[in-house]
Amino acid sequence: MRPMDEEQLRECGHRMVDFIADYYKSIETYPVLSQVQPGYLKELLPDSAPNQPDTLDALFDDIREKIVPGVTHWQSPNYFAYYPSNSSTAGFLGEMLSAAFNIVGFSWITSPAATELEVIVLDWVAKMLKLPSEFLSAALGGGVIQGTASEAILVVLLSARDRTLRKHGKKSLEKIVVYASDQTHSALKKACQIAGIFPENIRIVKADCSMNYAVTPGAVSEAISIDLSAGLIPFFICATVGTTSSSAVDPLHELGQIAQAHDMWFHIDAAYAGSACICPEYRKYLNGVEEADSFNMNAHKWFLTNFDCSLLWVKDRNYLIQALSTNPEFLKNKASQENSVIDFKDWQIPLGRRFRSLKLWMVLRLYGVENLQSYIRKHIQLAQHFEQLVISDPRFEVVTPRNFSLVCFCLVPPTCEVDNGHKLNYDLMDSANSSGKIFISHTVLSGKFVLRFVVGAPLTEEQHVDAAWKLLQDEATKLLGNVVQ
Amino acid sequence: MRPMDEEQLRECGHRMVDFIADYYKSIETYPVLSQVQPGYLKELLPDSAPNQPDTLDALFDDIREKIVPGVTHWQSPNYFAYYPSNSSTAGFLGEMLSAAFNIVGFSWITSPAATELEVIVLDWVAKMLKLPSEFLSAALGGGVIQGTASEAILVVLLSARDRTLRKHGKKSLEKIVVYASDQTHSALKKACQIAGIFPENIRIVKADCSMNYAVTPGAVSEAISIDLSAGLIPFFICATVGTTSSSAVDPLHELGQIAQAHDMWFHIDAAYAGSACICPEYRKYLNGVEEADSFNMNAHKWFLTNFDCSLLWVKDRNYLIQALSTNPEFLKNKASQENSVIDFKDWQIPLGRRFRSLKLWMVLRLYGVENLQSYIRKHIQLAQHFEQLVISDPRFEVVTPRNFSLVCFCLVPPTCEVDNGHKLNYDLMDSANSSGKIFISHTVLSGKFVLRFVVGAPLTEEQHVDAAWKLLQDEATKLLGNVVQ
Repeated sequence: MRPMDEEQLRECGHRMVDFIADYYKSIETYPVLSQVQPGYLKELLPDSAPNQPDTLDALFDDIREKIVPGVTHWQSPNYFAYYPSNSSTAGFLGEMLSAAFNIVGFSWITSPAATELEVIVLDWVAKMLKLPSEFLSAALGGGVIQGTASEAILVVLLSARDRTLRKHGKKSLEKIVVYASDQTHSALKKACQIAGIFPENIRIVKADCSMNYAVTPGAVSEAISIDLSAGLIPFFICATVGTTSSSAVDPLHELGQIAQAHDMWFHIDAAYAGSACICPEYRKYLNGVEEADSFNMNAHKWFLTNFDCSLLWVKDRNYLIQALSTNPEFLKNKASQENSVIDFKDWQIPLGRRFRSLKLWMVLRLYGVENLQSYIRKHIQLAQHFEQLVISDPRFEVVTPRNFSLVCFCLVPPTCEVDNGHKLNYDLMDSANSSGKIFISHTVLSGKFVLRFVVGAPLTEEQHVDAAWKLLQDEATKLLGNVVQ
Repeated sequence: MRPMDEEQLRECGHRMVDFIADYYKSIETYPVLSQVQPGYLKELLPDSAPNQPDTLDALFDDIREKIVPGVTHWQSPNYFAYYPSNSSTAGFLGEMLSAAFNIVGFSWITSPAATELEVIVLDWVAKMLKLPSEFLSAALGGGVIQGTASEAILVVLLSARDRTLRKHGKKSLEKIVVYASDQTHSALKKACQIAGIFPENIRIVKADCSMNYAVTPGAVSEAISIDLSAGLIPFFICATVGTTSSSAVDPLHELGQIAQAHDMWFHIDAAYAGSACICPEYRKYLNGVEEADSFNMNAHKWFLTNFDCSLLWVKDRNYLIQALSTNPEFLKNKASQENSVIDFKDWQIPLGRRFRSLKLWMVLRLYGVENLQSYIRKHIQLAQHFEQLVISDPRFEVVTPRNFSLVCFCLVPPTCEVDNGHKLNYDLMDSANSSGKIFISHTVLSGKFVLRFVVGAPLTEEQHVDAAWKLLQDEATKLLGNVVQ
């Protein structure tokens, strides 16, 4: 095989398309959660690279026999774990084209279309979400594609850190304090570690069932007052719309007011649930976003755009640029020096970046806003349907109200249970996942082991939800039978 | 179009393969460097997303007419700028398959094959590079795929920072010092900004033409001594094999000894030139790597693996894990809790990660080690050929000795020139790039504006190098003619 030859590329590309279409055709025949044991692949592959080339046939055989068994099938209609990672035909075509151009779009000049399309489609999505106009590129703000929400949170935390240190002096690092709830994604804690925020200056405010796991603004205010009295500098509040454990929605408006009163950066993480807010009936969950300095949503979760594609908007792009820009000689060019263009290298951690706006643009073009809204609504209806099934079986309970397409539920332990149903529900999850028929995940809420059932895979239909529920009921019957004995 | 339907995917996928093969067939007909003006795309696209879906035909028309003119063609055989970003048939197939599985491989369990294949192929490449055995997964070290070298440098800097702060206390942040040459990639400075290293604690040691832009170990030692006397804590040395400006190679062994003597972390950045070191005759440039704590090389530059795919090896993975791990309840699982697996989320900045090992594995399988070596050698021979052409024209000079496939050269200014040839060479580059026939970039070495000619695109043959040289000669003749007038 030549490194690059258009006719070889054509022939092999067609073969790969058929392989992939066949994979999707048979996707329900594989265990959703891979059932291999740790170290399985080391036994199957040689311990050094081949000196001579192998054939594409040999490679396809290995993919079928050695790789696929180790894949957990996120695109299976029976995948209900974590939050989804949507693939779609449009997103896949976008990935193909982006891989084919294979440009590295750090500066405008390295492929103007990559930067400009990104600016345009981020404006499109901002309008779909009815974000305030300050978040649009025509104002001081704008949108940018990050790899993941972790990176989105990190870059805004760094922007806020540096804004605060410019004001208070860089030796104030030991005094600056971050606020979030205990339901906030672990990405915030990791971002703090990276940014050098002192661990004792991360205020984790408890969110409990009385507020359905949303944070209480009063508790945040109180923590800020105590810190101010101690001479500390509150500088960052992170709110979540659709928390990872239970899809809780923090009170944005109140938190925004608190942040404003103390000149703090206010970030909203809507990684999962942001997608739902393109539907007018769910837009209410973003009320208060006008108070935010920054907002992120993952198009790669529940928006038919292949991973990775995390969308971040800021109200003032200069804070990002001040925190993240470098300007080495070897990257200088007329357009950048004249400040007539955006260079996204200064809005992110890495220098290099893929042409990711292509896939998002293709998703928006090939489905259109109305179909994307229907897609979201369908999943939420299926989750509602699952919730009703849970309610209808008295052995189970719904643990916290459902906001979007996640149902948090558990099997109610018989009274003799001492661990609050932990083992029972763990076993239920384990037996369901070990069957290979579905994949669900868990969390812990108020000390209770809770099962998470998320509808969000592109192929999921009512029949899959019904079959999953039947499996869970059957496994529950077995487990409760054992308990009774 | 349905969100996902295997027959639609098949049909559309085949059409996209043909579109891409046709693109490669006609790639030489486009200007290498896009000639559009800032803001061009805004004029061509609507300002909001369509409500109703568009057809794939309409999309292909828009790609041809609106996107392609804004693409800078990194895969063109006439692309000689920056460093290359290799696409290949194998790498492209790997991207397709990875986009199709569309898994999010943060933990082993989310797709065991993704983690295990990564461990295996990173061991393969480590062996191809003859890295010391401590860098292999069987020891305490191991390899991991990062997005870019910037991220590789950031995660090892964080590992080193936290190791040092654990020893000296976290308030020592203001005292810890980083050492590198002025030829080190700007990624290091950015990583320091992110990690909160005080700007005055970044020692940039000058590297000049007397050492061909490699750093002088004595100068590093001296800087360390001064810092130690001032009560500061030297903790990190970054060396480069193949600097961005001129492909200089720092003296690894000497720098490693210095780092060891002071209990400092020693990192080697071989982002571009690492690929060449799979050839026995170039392996000498890695002598001294046995002293390093970490080493990175970008498979996405000059190794036929589509962007992004930056390979990082460390001698002790625990430092990465200590700096970057988080363990939220919703990600807990049996395999992780039993410590029987690697969870790569704890080796990187983001949580989510793509199945990038597939493309690297496919490149290694479908080309084999010997073909990869030949590929490197061919590019170096073409660069050698270009160097000879430059030498043979007395109007030009080679500015610093060529190590790999980069030639640093310039047009010698007539004696009347006052700016050391800056304008003359800028104009030469600008006129060559504006022609659309080639794309080259520049740097500044010892105050001199220098042109960079890098051979590294997969389609480049001798005829492209010859045509590029003829264009440069012709443009030079025009410019020198103008100067003489």
